[in-house]
Amino acid sequence: MKLSDLGEFGLIDRIRRTFSQRSTKAPIGIGDDAAALSFSSSSTVLATTDLLIEGVHFDLATTDLYSLGWKSAAANLSDIAAMGGKPRFCLIGLGLPRRITVEQIDGFYKGFRALAGRHHALIIGGDTCRSEQGFLVSVTVLGESPRTRIVARSGSRPGDLIFVTGALGDSGAGLEILEKRSGTRRMTGKMTAAERSLVERHLRPVPRVEWGRKIAASGCASAMIDVSDGLSSDLGHICEASRVGAEVLADRVPLTKALLSSKGLRRPALEYALSAGEDYELLFTVPANKLRKLRNLRIPVTGIGRIMAGRTMTLITAAGTRLPLEPSGYDHFRPRVRTKGARP
Amino acid sequence: MKLSDLGEFGLIDRIRRTFSQRSTKAPIGIGDDAAALSFSSSSTVLATTDLLIEGVHFDLATTDLYSLGWKSAAANLSDIAAMGGKPRFCLIGLGLPRRITVEQIDGFYKGFRALAGRHHALIIGGDTCRSEQGFLVSVTVLGESPRTRIVARSGSRPGDLIFVTGALGDSGAGLEILEKRSGTRRMTGKMTAAERSLVERHLRPVPRVEWGRKIAASGCASAMIDVSDGLSSDLGHICEASRVGAEVLADRVPLTKALLSSKGLRRPALEYALSAGEDYELLFTVPANKLRKLRNLRIPVTGIGRIMAGRTMTLITAAGTRLPLEPSGYDHFRPRVRTKGARP
Repeated sequence: MKLSDLGEFGLIDRIRRTFSQRSTKAPIGIGDDAAALSFSSSSTVLATTDLLIEGVHFDLATTDLYSLGWKSAAANLSDIAAMGGKPRFCLIGLGLPRRITVEQIDGFYKGFRALAGRHHALIIGGDTCRSEQGFLVSVTVLGESPRTRIVARSGSRPGDLIFVTGALGDSGAGLEILEKRSGTRRMTGKMTAAERSLVERHLRPVPRVEWGRKIAASGCASAMIDVSDGLSSDLGHICEASRVGAEVLADRVPLTKALLSSKGLRRPALEYALSAGEDYELLFTVPANKLRKLRNLRIPVTGIGRIMAGRTMTLITAAGTRLPLEPSGYDHFRPRVRTKGARP
Repeated sequence: MKLSDLGEFGLIDRIRRTFSQRSTKAPIGIGDDAAALSFSSSSTVLATTDLLIEGVHFDLATTDLYSLGWKSAAANLSDIAAMGGKPRFCLIGLGLPRRITVEQIDGFYKGFRALAGRHHALIIGGDTCRSEQGFLVSVTVLGESPRTRIVARSGSRPGDLIFVTGALGDSGAGLEILEKRSGTRRMTGKMTAAERSLVERHLRPVPRVEWGRKIAASGCASAMIDVSDGLSSDLGHICEASRVGAEVLADRVPLTKALLSSKGLRRPALEYALSAGEDYELLFTVPANKLRKLRNLRIPVTGIGRIMAGRTMTLITAAGTRLPLEPSGYDHFRPRVRTKGARP
C-alpha cells in the first residue's frame, strides 16, 4: 500500500493500533501530544537517542526493513545496557521517502518490536513525516536503574582489568560480505555457514541488556561502554572520560571461529574488532579486588588488558611488540585515516 | 570553523562544554552512553519527540540557525505544555551536511537553549552525525506532571466549550512573507511593523508552558492539544480522540491586528488560523460547570465554539452560514487538497 493512500494520520493510527502496547505503566501512549509514563519511584531514569540516516548508517541494498528496525532498537537498548539499566519505553521518529511502502514500515516496526519486546520495552510514541531525501530513523529509549547501580564511563583507575563480553568484529566483517554481494560487481554463490553467521551478527545484533544489568548490580565494574564504534574507539572513550591509559593484548581479543575462518575478507580479523564497530558487546573495567564478583556472575567475558596511568593506549602483539593503539573507529566528520601502527 | 577540523568527538566535547548544563537532577549528561536523570517520585514522566527535516519542515533560506534551534525547542516544549506538564530535559540529534559550519551549530544550540532555559529545561544528551542530504534535527523532550493533572485529547464531551489561548494564524502568514522575500522573484523593501511581527511569530514562537500548567492544575480542561497543524486539524484530533463533533464560530477565532492589517497576503486571514499551523497556542475544552475555574486563571483565552454530539465539525460564519469544517492542515503523505467549503 502506498503511504499517500493512508495519509499521515492514517499511518499514525495504524502504528498505534498495531504496534503500540497498552500498559498501566504507559497510561497515555501513541496519539496524544506526549506519552505519559510511570517509572519506579526509587529509580534514576536513563535516556539515550540515536539518528540513523540512509546512506550514512545503512543502505537499503544491504538490509531489509525488519533488520533495520531490529538494529535501530539494538543500538539504543545497548546504550541502556552499558549503563546497567533496564530499557522501558521507546519513541520512534521516521522520515519517509515516497518510495517506502506501508508494508515496509510495518516491517520496520515488527523488527523493532521483536527485539524491544524481548526486553519488555514498549513502543509508546514517535513522529512520522515525509522525507525528500533518504529514509531517516530517530530512536529514543528511556530506561531505569536503581540510583546506586549506574555504571558511567569515567570510573576506571590504573590497575583495573579490561573485559569484553562475547566476541568482537563479526558485525564489521558481516557488513563487508553484504556489500560485496550488493555492489555493481556483485559476488554471487551461496554464503558459507560462517559468512551467514557474520551477516546475522551485522543485521540482527543482540544487545547485552541482561549482562549489563548483572554487571551493574554486582558492583564489580568501575566503568562500562558498549562497543558501537570499535574496540579502539570505545576503549578510547573510557580512557578519555576516566583520564587513564590502557594496554590491550592483541591475542586476547575474543574473535569467533566464523570470523577467523572466513576467507576473502579484506582485512586481518583483528582489525574488524578494533575498528569496525556495531558489535554491541559490553566493554568494562574491573578493579582487582572485585574480580570474584565478576566470576560469580557466570557470563561469557574475556580479560583483554588493563588500565594504565598516563593517557596512552598500547596494543601488545603476540610477539610482544608494543604498538600505539589509536581510536580508529568511524568519525562522522573526518575522512577515514588508516593508522598503520595500530594494525598488526 | 569546518566540522572536519573538529571531528565528531571534538564536536560532542564542544557541545558538552558549552551547552550542557550541570545539575544534581542530571548526574550524567552529554558524553556517556545514556543520560541519568532524576524526576520527582510522585510525578508521571511525559515524553515527546519530533523530527525536523530541511526541505520539509524548514528552509535555511527563510530561517537562521538560532531561530531553527529556538523553534525546534518550541515545538516540543509545546507538546509538554499541551499535557499540562513541566519540561525538564532535552535530547538533540543533529544530522549535519558538510556545508554546515561549527558556528552555525553553535547558533542552533544557542537558540535552543535560549528558549529551553526560560523553562529551566536542560540539554542533557543527543547524537551528532553526518548527513549526505539535508540538515536534520530530532528533538526529544522529557517533562513531568503530577499524576492527576495530565490533560489528554480524549476527554471532551458534548456541551463543553472550546477555548484557544492567544491568537492564531500569525505564524503561517509570517512564513508566507519570508517565502516571498527569499524566492527567485524576491520581494524587496522594508517590512512593515505588522509583517515583522508575523515573521517573529513564525521564527520564534513562544510555547504556552506556564498557561498549560495552570490550565491543567486548575482541573478545568476536559481535553487539550497545541495548535501545530492548524485549528481545523488540531480540533479534529480532539474530536477524533474524544469521539465528538464541534461547532466553531468563525468570527470568534482570535486574530491579531498584525494579521488582519497585513496587505498582500494570498489568503483571507482566517485561513491561516484554520490550516497553517505552527502557532503553538493551546486549544482546550471546558465543561460549563468549570468555566469559573478557567476565568480565575486570568490567562488570555477566547471561547470559539463548543463540542457537539456526533462526529462532524462545523464552521458558522458571521452571517450564520454553516460550513463543513474539515481538517485542512498539512498531511505529510498526501498532496494538499483545498476543501472549498471550509474556507469562508
